[in-house]
Amino acid sequence: SRSINLAVIPGDGIGQEVVAEGLKVLSAVLPQDVKLETKDFDFGARRYHATGETLTDADLDALKKHDAILLGAIGDPSVPSGVLERGFLLKLRFAFDHHVNLRPSKLLPGVDTPLKGEPAIDFVVVREGTEGPYTGNGGTIRKGTEHEVATEVSVNTAFGVERVVRDAFARAQARPRKKLTLVHKNNVLTFAGHLWTNIFNKVAEEFPEVTTDYIHVDAATIYLVTDPARFDVIVTDNLFGDIITDLAAAVSGGIGVAASGNINPSGEFPSMFEPVHGSAPDIAGQGKADPTATVLSVALLLRHLGFVAEAARIDEAVTADLAERTGKPARSTSEIGDALAVRVAG
Amino acid sequence: SRSINLAVIPGDGIGQEVVAEGLKVLSAVLPQDVKLETKDFDFGARRYHATGETLTDADLDALKKHDAILLGAIGDPSVPSGVLERGFLLKLRFAFDHHVNLRPSKLLPGVDTPLKGEPAIDFVVVREGTEGPYTGNGGTIRKGTEHEVATEVSVNTAFGVERVVRDAFARAQARPRKKLTLVHKNNVLTFAGHLWTNIFNKVAEEFPEVTTDYIHVDAATIYLVTDPARFDVIVTDNLFGDIITDLAAAVSGGIGVAASGNINPSGEFPSMFEPVHGSAPDIAGQGKADPTATVLSVALLLRHLGFVAEAARIDEAVTADLAERTGKPARSTSEIGDALAVRVAG
Ligand SMILES: CC(C)[C@H](C(=O)O)[C@@H](O)C(=O)O
Ligand SMILES: CC(C)[C@H](C(=O)O)[C@@H](O)C(=O)O
Repeated sequence: SRSINLAVIPGDGIGQEVVAEGLKVLSAVLPQDVKLETKDFDFGARRYHATGETLTDADLDALKKHDAILLGAIGDPSVPSGVLERGFLLKLRFAFDHHVNLRPSKLLPGVDTPLKGEPAIDFVVVREGTEGPYTGNGGTIRKGTEHEVATEVSVNTAFGVERVVRDAFARAQARPRKKLTLVHKNNVLTFAGHLWTNIFNKVAEEFPEVTTDYIHVDAATIYLVTDPARFDVIVTDNLFGDIITDLAAAVSGGIGVAASGNINPSGEFPSMFEPVHGSAPDIAGQGKADPTATVLSVALLLRHLGFVAEAARIDEAVTADLAERTGKPARSTSEIGDALAVRVAG
Repeated sequence: SRSINLAVIPGDGIGQEVVAEGLKVLSAVLPQDVKLETKDFDFGARRYHATGETLTDADLDALKKHDAILLGAIGDPSVPSGVLERGFLLKLRFAFDHHVNLRPSKLLPGVDTPLKGEPAIDFVVVREGTEGPYTGNGGTIRKGTEHEVATEVSVNTAFGVERVVRDAFARAQARPRKKLTLVHKNNVLTFAGHLWTNIFNKVAEEFPEVTTDYIHVDAATIYLVTDPARFDVIVTDNLFGDIITDLAAAVSGGIGVAASGNINPSGEFPSMFEPVHGSAPDIAGQGKADPTATVLSVALLLRHLGFVAEAARIDEAVTADLAERTGKPARSTSEIGDALAVRVAG
């Protein structure tokens, strides 16, 4: 019989609240015969303040034993910038080789966009997750003096670029429009740009049905607000992906509905699924957070584990729920979770 | 008597057309007693194909003799990506130490924005122009093999960061709202991020009247579409500045009206002014290009050279011209230039 052995990391701020609803919907959507086991992990600001630890080798060993990870949010203003980001979020992505960072953007009916004219937004960004300027290479000399020099090194390998480009081509091939756009800055970052462009063009030959194009990252931000409907699948580097997926979330309904997956396609390590939003300490504990992005992340998780029909039921439930929101009074975090749980069970 | 000794680089594509109109308006706005001398320089794709040269030491010497440079656009699909960018545009910015890359964004009445609700956009981005990932540091090993590694090194110095941060504070201080936002990614790019944040906070002490805040570059793209009115002056690194100023241009009326200055504040080398748009080869030679961004760049140039009243006259002429466009048939490049020349002269 089938089973899911899930590591759950509620984390900081609204993470706790939204993950509770994600799990509620997950339980509701799974067929009786699927055994769901969850184990909670206490990571984030509380643990850091209590122990000074963010993510130990023992933690990684424990997480490794699971089929997947559901994360709420990590981060709190009480922790210096970079400590939890580098010490937890990025450490996990690197340790578990989450090289496919998947971020779909879809403007659903009833959802408000800051853009005029209700554009038909439906694309997915495949962001590289283990290279680029995120590797932590670089350093500082003469720190704090007038002669300080600080460097950040973007590291790009043929191995790392090819596997994510190939993944993106396969995703484009499986979609109706079959279109893949490479976003980079190859006219300025010519070393990395050449590698990305070359590999992109090489892999393209294996996918003759996929239409390709190339856009500089600066121009991509223009298209994301003037013609987002032009995009189907985008593949890009770690930092460019970070930037354009926040913009993509903003134009397609906001980070309240933006889901993401940090995926290790080989299955060697568990993949992690999380809402794109952060811990939002200003509204934490008030039942105000929208759990939709977490619920959609649960759908990505299910699809990754092969529960395709269940994932589709969640997507449909969210679409229906969003379509009925207009003009209604705001609901609490758990009210939205309850409503979605009822829909997916029905 | 006063004089302006101007180097003119029309460049490629629509560059020729828009620069002609920029000069038309410049001549019209200058008082009789100001002697305007211009010298044309033939740089860009044509020269590259004819000679293989992009910008020689002799070229730099010749350019150096001028008070300022007006550039149309450089770039053509017939030239491999990176050749003119690195070999001309960036080479000039670096050679003439254009460390303040100034890019104002203002949504003028009558101008269309892709954003709902006609936000009150009026901010200026001070983009660092001589450091960051633009230095060309980095390299490639095992090129073309499956073991290729390509690096790009972002170089940040206390000297380089402090001077641009100081310039941005002074600009914020001189504006009614007196607000300065640092945009970086200091939670991930912790070496460079620490340097930028530290210097920003240190210089802030000298400008007690300026309100400051900090936003990660990914979140900045969200604010630029959901709440652009929150920005007054932004200071940021070379690459982040490249990305967010294209987005800023898109939300505040498009690159048809986006002007920029590559400024050497010390005056040791001439500063260069150019529209943010490129050479647009698809519409070149058809009289379809809007010269407004070039004309606004001429205003930045005049303000830089101390012709403040003349710069203001151009800004007012452009504002009036844009306000009257709605519903009217499209005009040619030279018709728009003529109309602006009449307005500034009147
Ligand atoms: C919190 C931060 C480390 C992270 C990133 O930059 O990747 C976040 O912005 C994201 O997009 O997941
Ligand atoms: C053409 C390119 C080198 C340039 C840049 O990246 O700076 C352009 O995008 C700009 O913003 O002026």
